[in-house]
Amino acid sequence: MDDLTIRIIETKADMIRDNDAEAALLRKSLSDGPLFVNLMASPGAGKTTLLCRTVRELGPEWHVGIIEADVDSDVDARAVQKAGAAAVQLHTGGSCHMDAGMTRAGLEGLSLSGLDIVFLENIGNLVCPAEFDTGADLKAVMLSLPEGDDKPLKYPLMFQVADCLLVSKLDTAPVFDFDMEKLRANVDALNPGLPLMPLSAVTGEGFEAWLTWLKDRAKQKKDGLLQA
Amino acid sequence: MDDLTIRIIETKADMIRDNDAEAALLRKSLSDGPLFVNLMASPGAGKTTLLCRTVRELGPEWHVGIIEADVDSDVDARAVQKAGAAAVQLHTGGSCHMDAGMTRAGLEGLSLSGLDIVFLENIGNLVCPAEFDTGADLKAVMLSLPEGDDKPLKYPLMFQVADCLLVSKLDTAPVFDFDMEKLRANVDALNPGLPLMPLSAVTGEGFEAWLTWLKDRAKQKKDGLLQA
Repeated sequence: MDDLTIRIIETKADMIRDNDAEAALLRKSLSDGPLFVNLMASPGAGKTTLLCRTVRELGPEWHVGIIEADVDSDVDARAVQKAGAAAVQLHTGGSCHMDAGMTRAGLEGLSLSGLDIVFLENIGNLVCPAEFDTGADLKAVMLSLPEGDDKPLKYPLMFQVADCLLVSKLDTAPVFDFDMEKLRANVDALNPGLPLMPLSAVTGEGFEAWLTWLKDRAKQKKDGLLQA
Repeated sequence: MDDLTIRIIETKADMIRDNDAEAALLRKSLSDGPLFVNLMASPGAGKTTLLCRTVRELGPEWHVGIIEADVDSDVDARAVQKAGAAAVQLHTGGSCHMDAGMTRAGLEGLSLSGLDIVFLENIGNLVCPAEFDTGADLKAVMLSLPEGDDKPLKYPLMFQVADCLLVSKLDTAPVFDFDMEKLRANVDALNPGLPLMPLSAVTGEGFEAWLTWLKDRAKQKKDGLLQA
């Protein structure tokens, strides 16, 4: 068993190193392209619903492309397309995360010219996607209120790598025992000062801050001033 | 990129084959032991809360052991211990699932003699844990109502391997658009007739069915009649 454990770890380290190199190349090749955001969260945290409302609220002057990654099904790509985004659905088979190679394939399925923002909706998973650089400019992590304020303690890497943290399903606050101050403290221990944006894709509460965050960074990228 | 993809798949297949063999050995060595249940769900679906109420409702005549697997932290082991279970906390480092070797280490941390039921609370993840046999007798999968009725479409393997499906947070039904009939249809397409138990660990609604399911199987195992 000890041999097996060691072998797995080495393979994983190789895989992550190879992926990091490919992600860096991909990011470089997109330096004149749209802002590219990797959206990560648990299954059912509301990633697709967030993206649908984001596309609608940004309005027709913003051109948005979305790569939907799922183990199976195409329900998400249909939903965001209906909301007004250019969409492509990737099936990862059994894979639990997106890597840079899979992301490149997704980007090739979109026509990037004319797009202002591209989202990668990653597989619903708080563990594996945190380890794999996809070549995106920024990592938006979302935690839904029903999941609880203790999640940074259990899945620390995801909260360490995040460039912002959306706290979704804010409209359900009355039925859950969720302490936003406790979340803030748990997050600050891992990633001090991480922008934290509570919002609801149902009521639209909190969306202004999220849209401003996005638009500012899309502009910074266009001007060559984006700092991840 | 093609080479990299192929290499990963081969490594994974080897790893799963090795694990299957170790899991079969582990299960055989536990044939005279307590009922051993692998509990799997998304982050924040309510696995720990379910286990705490389960331990309390089973009462003092049932002796329960719990292996808590987390990437980090020990909040879950403390919680189930307080509820009355014998508990051990495993830290998986970055690993996104439990395998048979890690499970064996967890079991060695519990004193099995005198226990009637042992739970493994797996890492919160609907993808990777579905692929790894831990040596448990049964797989209990839990989906929380806030996650939505479409999850079997997106994470099919988890619902295929399940021996029962608990639908948690039933008390929050008024604030979510969750269709239990749709879930039933989505599940039946993958795993026809899978026992589906809606319940709330807050109100106790639906717990009778879950406790009966557990007790029946613990008795079957004791009598050498358990069929997984």
